[in-house]
Amino acid sequence: MTKFMDVHHGMVGITDQQFHQAHAADLAIQGDEGVTFEHAWADPEAGIVYCLSEAPDADAVQRVHQRAGHPADEIHRVPLSL
Amino acid sequence: MTKFMDVHHGMVGITDQQFHQAHAADLAIQGDEGVTFEHAWADPEAGIVYCLSEAPDADAVQRVHQRAGHPADEIHRVPLSL
Repeated sequence: MTKFMDVHHGMVGITDQQFHQAHAADLAIQGDEGVTFEHAWADPEAGIVYCLSEAPDADAVQRVHQRAGHPADEIHRVPLSL
Repeated sequence: MTKFMDVHHGMVGITDQQFHQAHAADLAIQGDEGVTFEHAWADPEAGIVYCLSEAPDADAVQRVHQRAGHPADEIHRVPLSL
């Protein structure tokens, strides 16, 4: 398992409720792909959402996000963390 | 205090040691600006580093990174977090 940081753009104006709902949609199906979403952060002004996960690979992260209706624009393997 | 996610590009090939040293340089002076760096993640392949902090404002985050010798390319206020 490796850590991944994925990034979503185009989320300008995302509300706290929308953010929670989107994250809950990921959590509901993450087990199917062996993914564990650990944290997420949103900048509603710039419309950027960051998600940190542990996953077998980037494709697994993307499959969860796609099925939840919000595919990621970038997925980065972040093997170094502090 | 607000959370900020800042992003550094151009870090291709960053090693675990370089990553630790860069983070330590931030931690050594963060108190001068009222910033607390909480976590950081690096993708050495794409050369991207993400830093999560609590800070009074984005300028304070940037001042720490600049003085430590690695100014951020983006600093995003992330008032929503999970």
